[in-house]
Amino acid sequence: MADLFWPGDEHAGDLFSEPAFLSAMVRVEAAWLATLVEHRLVPADAADDLDGLVGPDDVAEVAAGAESGGNPVIGLLKLLRARVEPRNTAAARWMHRGLTSQDVLDTALVLLAGDASERVLAETRGQVEALATLVREHRATPVAARTLTQQAVPITFGLKAATWLESVVAAGRGLAAVDASAAVQVGGAAGSLAASSELAALQDDPDPAGRSLALVETFADRLGLVPVAPWHTSRGRVTAIGDALVTCTDAWGRIATDVATLARPEVGELHEATGGGSSTMPHKQNPVLSVLLRRAAIAAPPLAATLHTASALSVDERPDGSWHAEWATLRTLARRTVTASVQARTLLSGLRVDAEAMAANLAEAGDALLAEQRSIAGLLDRDPSPTYAGATDLLVERALATATTYLQETS
Amino acid sequence: MADLFWPGDEHAGDLFSEPAFLSAMVRVEAAWLATLVEHRLVPADAADDLDGLVGPDDVAEVAAGAESGGNPVIGLLKLLRARVEPRNTAAARWMHRGLTSQDVLDTALVLLAGDASERVLAETRGQVEALATLVREHRATPVAARTLTQQAVPITFGLKAATWLESVVAAGRGLAAVDASAAVQVGGAAGSLAASSELAALQDDPDPAGRSLALVETFADRLGLVPVAPWHTSRGRVTAIGDALVTCTDAWGRIATDVATLARPEVGELHEATGGGSSTMPHKQNPVLSVLLRRAAIAAPPLAATLHTASALSVDERPDGSWHAEWATLRTLARRTVTASVQARTLLSGLRVDAEAMAANLAEAGDALLAEQRSIAGLLDRDPSPTYAGATDLLVERALATATTYLQETS
Amino acid sequence: MADLFWPGDEHAGDLFSEPAFLSAMVRVEAAWLATLVEHRLVPADAADDLDGLVGPDDVAEVAAGAESGGNPVIGLLKLLRARVEPRNTAAARWMHRGLTSQDVLDTALVLLAGDASERVLAETRGQVEALATLVREHRATPVAARTLTQQAVPITFGLKAATWLESVVAAGRGLAAVDASAAVQVGGAAGSLAASSELAALQDDPDPAGRSLALVETFADRLGLVPVAPWHTSRGRVTAIGDALVTCTDAWGRIATDVATLARPEVGELHEATGGGSSTMPHKQNPVLSVLLRRAAIAAPPLAATLHTASALSVDERPDGSWHAEWATLRTLARRTVTASVQARTLLSGLRVDAEAMAANLAEAGDALLAEQRSIAGLLDRDPSPTYAGATDLLVERALATATTYLQETS
Amino acid sequence: MADLFWPGDEHAGDLFSEPAFLSAMVRVEAAWLATLVEHRLVPADAADDLDGLVGPDDVAEVAAGAESGGNPVIGLLKLLRARVEPRNTAAARWMHRGLTSQDVLDTALVLLAGDASERVLAETRGQVEALATLVREHRATPVAARTLTQQAVPITFGLKAATWLESVVAAGRGLAAVDASAAVQVGGAAGSLAASSELAALQDDPDPAGRSLALVETFADRLGLVPVAPWHTSRGRVTAIGDALVTCTDAWGRIATDVATLARPEVGELHEATGGGSSTMPHKQNPVLSVLLRRAAIAAPPLAATLHTASALSVDERPDGSWHAEWATLRTLARRTVTASVQARTLLSGLRVDAEAMAANLAEAGDALLAEQRSIAGLLDRDPSPTYAGATDLLVERALATATTYLQETS
Repeated sequence: MADLFWPGDEHAGDLFSEPAFLSAMVRVEAAWLATLVEHRLVPADAADDLDGLVGPDDVAEVAAGAESGGNPVIGLLKLLRARVEPRNTAAARWMHRGLTSQDVLDTALVLLAGDASERVLAETRGQVEALATLVREHRATPVAARTLTQQAVPITFGLKAATWLESVVAAGRGLAAVDASAAVQVGGAAGSLAASSELAALQDDPDPAGRSLALVETFADRLGLVPVAPWHTSRGRVTAIGDALVTCTDAWGRIATDVATLARPEVGELHEATGGGSSTMPHKQNPVLSVLLRRAAIAAPPLAATLHTASALSVDERPDGSWHAEWATLRTLARRTVTASVQARTLLSGLRVDAEAMAANLAEAGDALLAEQRSIAGLLDRDPSPTYAGATDLLVERALATATTYLQETS
Repeated sequence: MADLFWPGDEHAGDLFSEPAFLSAMVRVEAAWLATLVEHRLVPADAADDLDGLVGPDDVAEVAAGAESGGNPVIGLLKLLRARVEPRNTAAARWMHRGLTSQDVLDTALVLLAGDASERVLAETRGQVEALATLVREHRATPVAARTLTQQAVPITFGLKAATWLESVVAAGRGLAAVDASAAVQVGGAAGSLAASSELAALQDDPDPAGRSLALVETFADRLGLVPVAPWHTSRGRVTAIGDALVTCTDAWGRIATDVATLARPEVGELHEATGGGSSTMPHKQNPVLSVLLRRAAIAAPPLAATLHTASALSVDERPDGSWHAEWATLRTLARRTVTASVQARTLLSGLRVDAEAMAANLAEAGDALLAEQRSIAGLLDRDPSPTYAGATDLLVERALATATTYLQETS
Repeated sequence: MADLFWPGDEHAGDLFSEPAFLSAMVRVEAAWLATLVEHRLVPADAADDLDGLVGPDDVAEVAAGAESGGNPVIGLLKLLRARVEPRNTAAARWMHRGLTSQDVLDTALVLLAGDASERVLAETRGQVEALATLVREHRATPVAARTLTQQAVPITFGLKAATWLESVVAAGRGLAAVDASAAVQVGGAAGSLAASSELAALQDDPDPAGRSLALVETFADRLGLVPVAPWHTSRGRVTAIGDALVTCTDAWGRIATDVATLARPEVGELHEATGGGSSTMPHKQNPVLSVLLRRAAIAAPPLAATLHTASALSVDERPDGSWHAEWATLRTLARRTVTASVQARTLLSGLRVDAEAMAANLAEAGDALLAEQRSIAGLLDRDPSPTYAGATDLLVERALATATTYLQETS
Repeated sequence: MADLFWPGDEHAGDLFSEPAFLSAMVRVEAAWLATLVEHRLVPADAADDLDGLVGPDDVAEVAAGAESGGNPVIGLLKLLRARVEPRNTAAARWMHRGLTSQDVLDTALVLLAGDASERVLAETRGQVEALATLVREHRATPVAARTLTQQAVPITFGLKAATWLESVVAAGRGLAAVDASAAVQVGGAAGSLAASSELAALQDDPDPAGRSLALVETFADRLGLVPVAPWHTSRGRVTAIGDALVTCTDAWGRIATDVATLARPEVGELHEATGGGSSTMPHKQNPVLSVLLRRAAIAAPPLAATLHTASALSVDERPDGSWHAEWATLRTLARRTVTASVQARTLLSGLRVDAEAMAANLAEAGDALLAEQRSIAGLLDRDPSPTYAGATDLLVERALATATTYLQETS
């Protein structure tokens, strides 16, 4: 999959695609059916992995049928039942019992978000490795620090890259934390687990309510998710995913802005590995990855904001529109983030640092960049120190230690 | 096309789809080539309508190649040239001369936006017709006005629908105005029309610069657009489209919020023609269209805001990321708006008004709703008038006149 | 008024301040009272200009009392009545009759927005004058065009400034158009003008409803606004103001981004008149106005988006929270825009253009910037023209003509 | 402090006010001066708590002077030095050495955010207490669950309140976590701690860089904050505060939407303790707190998004506008959140639950709400259970346990 409107989208591959969404919903139905069987709430012969019943070719049909009920689960369920019926009547009969559409759809979204997060996290590892290399190689490469666009004092490029590194690690850790708490959604029609409890009660389960909660645990276990109370209208789990994703694009957007700035020919200190060309201006080496990363960083925050607005407008036991706004928003945000994660890793892995250009710019700026140092020295009536590196080395060391820890904790 | 993540997306059909985008870009290249031929800046045998050279099957290839140059035009051009070469060497040689990628892409986006707007405007006509009918039929149907959720005074449902009508007309007019000023983008590499002027100069055109502007006029004429100065980094044209679209979803979102509220069973005054069902609760008649319209109204404003942020961050003669953020954002916003326009028309055309329920609710509220009237009468020491309709009739009349005018001016 | 959190806010002075808001609400009540008197719906001795009754010293009291009723009008009215009572019992008795709180507050907001717009428009005139001077002086000053951050082809700085100029004019015109349609809000409790019609009816007015609409006209006339149907829940008028304001900050944000970029010491082509200093680095000349303008451009779009979300969520005859979100949002957006308008005018009036630096950067880039020209010439097997200015001169001419027209139409 | 444009703003009192900002900046300068003295990098007689030197009366002057340098620290520092000079020349001389403006301003913002968070957290405790009471009292109060606005199945109001409770606890925990990691900003001009290291080096400190890091620790300790590496352009700490705050307003917005819905007279199941009145309609009991909470929930997400955009656009060693956009945005978001926290606590503490209305609405809906139960029973060919409460009791129990834990961990 690629997207003519979003160059690079192919990096997100099938993640959060329509086929993946359909498949995740089937996986959710299958896990629930298996859970019902395991707990003997439905006959053992209802066991069916639902495999091969519905696939990418069904996306169009299910999608087109989704408007009438407001979501795609109703149509999917009908299709699944019709197709499993010939091979397994019991499965057709017992599938989905105890769930509501939102249970299926929300849990599927969580699974998709998990897949996307996993990919983003893998890319952040690559970024951190590339950054650690940059930091190590350039810990002593002098470069002019700029503040409010103007040259300020000398630092090293290693220090600059160290701050990039720490942003990426922080963003990665945030996403990993959210991912680790990814939870199932099971509440039934109104979050009371009434239908599953009724199923249990009518089969003389001594503790139908407890059984329902046990179902949630088994179900979560089967999907590798956390069992929690229903969150049909408590959407903090969704906004947390959005916030974690946009914090990633923020971190890369800032790096990309730095690269695009320092890759200007008048500065010339950084270059992307292979610049983008121009059909009519062969001399140009456009910092295309930086440009595309900035694009993602500009587009992401409003998407995360949409999730918050949707969360705040939830009402009743299941919302009247705000929930429906989440699905495509989360999809777009996740795919943008995955694409950007790959582009950021590629950018950082191939980044070319022109230490000579850095030195030349510093030389051009001359003495002015040591004005602060001279003023400190003047206060003490001493000559300035031979260098003005401050704690650069210690800060770099700490960033590298952070990188090492991050790579260990995510391996 | 349907979208599993956005039920109803199929209403947008091929509008702003990837094939439509590709096709629009080809149309732009063809119009420019024809323009160059018409002005004799390139040999007459370069004439070629580029028809049939590139189509939906090429979307994947062009999309996948777009990352390296940052946009899909470079790859499309290469493909077009390779395919036209066998039948028309001159076309391959002269195509695109004088343009830059952004000229092609921006003009294509404008064409796509025009197609989407046209569809939205057609739907607003249908909405206005449906609304005029509602206003006419219920100009005297009493209903409780609610303010801050509480019953306030009696009005008529016709008056309420009249305010819906005026919002839709205002939104439609705003979109039509933007659509009427839709313009080509032609500037060449940096907005100076240098390449086309050079083409003219080297062919001894007495006024190469004037020729360039004449090219822009011919080109615009061929595409049914307005000729204007280059706007590579002046993105007010894009934000104006976004603002006009979101003003439409605002108008429908408010109507949908009203319908969803009045369709609550405890109120029961409005019903969608066919409510959405539930797999496990057959009694339910969910106001699905209202729900899906609210979804669009929640998702749209942040997309329009993205276009503004992108506009504000434009830099140099062509931007470094903000432009790239516009394409998919505009696509999504436009498709959401088209889908919502159809849903709003369907909703309004089939809306069932339960005048008895309205009357019953009014009766239940009783005298309290005339408290304001009594207090006015008390001030004058008179008995209250027999009704408290105010200027309802005149306001309704005016809204109907507005509807008539709108339908005339858009027919 | 200044704001420690928003340097430069003092430029907005009293515009959209709390005292100005209070004063505008009093002005609205006074205009309505005068309208009622003029139409003889209330006794002639109720005439009172309400002058001097409520002022800045009352802001705190009215503000603190606003929570209990949800808006400040209720408390203001109580205060006004108590204070006018001693001098004019009739005024106390008849004031506000026929209005609802939202009528007063909305009309006051419209007045405040008008004052802010007027100021912004005055500043855009100054900007256009400054820009026209820049365009004229530098129409032939060569500078490198940059696209995707890289040098592309030579243009002139006059052409660049011409695109700035056209953005500012377009934004100014958009704001002026919105300002020209600024309307009163009069609907009474639920938009039916019931109370004012009752007032008329009980005084045996032959056409009470027509009288109500006549009141709206007189009222609008007194305030210099347009008379329209009630728009309590049709908020397109508010979003239009927001969109027009943010389109202004977009235009300045883009100029500021250009200036901040070209003011980088490695580029050195532009300088603000007086750069901001640094406490410890005396050599620095920070492009402070550009920095502060970029700040406004980043902060404004989400505020305009809030107005759209609020509009879309309107419900009933008066909204349940979305309306309340508009007031402070519009205030902040308007003050930011006014402040930015002054900063943009100051920036442009004092902008220093370093033609030598531009020439030096072009020389440094060398032949590469003429690659496109050479490729055009190559296609024709001719030598390139002596210059590569394209239609620069004509485009500049048009921009200057636009400036002249704008200055005339706004004078 | 109250705000005529934002009723209820007085609840935020002096939190994040201009005087509080000024005072926090002075506190930061004082803590740093004390740190320098403690580490003997400056003479012992430079010790000065800076107390009483600058206060609320100076806000206007410092604010008005902030534009020229782009931030208020430069002017504040000048004022502080001038005022401390007469009593302590050494303090005037050594104050601020090693810091940059952004260090002072960022750390001050962190302190203000901490104060605001503390207040919000105190209010969430009150909310959780009120919610636990509601849950306990109404764990068995039957109410119709609504999904997509339609009645679905019976639940209890206690279960509904339990989901509110869990949202509030989750939001509170998120904010507490961010608050617990609130960190100082110390980097000097460009994040290398060069000036403080130079101070140490020139006084023959054997480990000047280590000394700088020790200064950061002491400084953080004095302010009750965490010592971390400089984050001048790594703004994840700021976006995390924003995300945590908006997650709170989301949680309250959803509760308020529920209350506003169920307080509609046709539903009549919930009532605010004291509804807001109307000047002309004495019968009305507007759910004013819910309305004002919804207002905050609508306004907050775009503010948090602004912080993300600002973060993503950071560049160089200190940003060129994005940083400046944060201050007022964070201020507004924080004050809105504090105000809403108080309103939410008040709303929940006084919420009146009309169990009879709930029962009546259920009765009105009748058998239809048990359709799902009957269909489950039908599948098993059994009679439905006497109730359909599902796991309500267990879910309520868990929510109450969560409340207890939360109250313990935050006490």
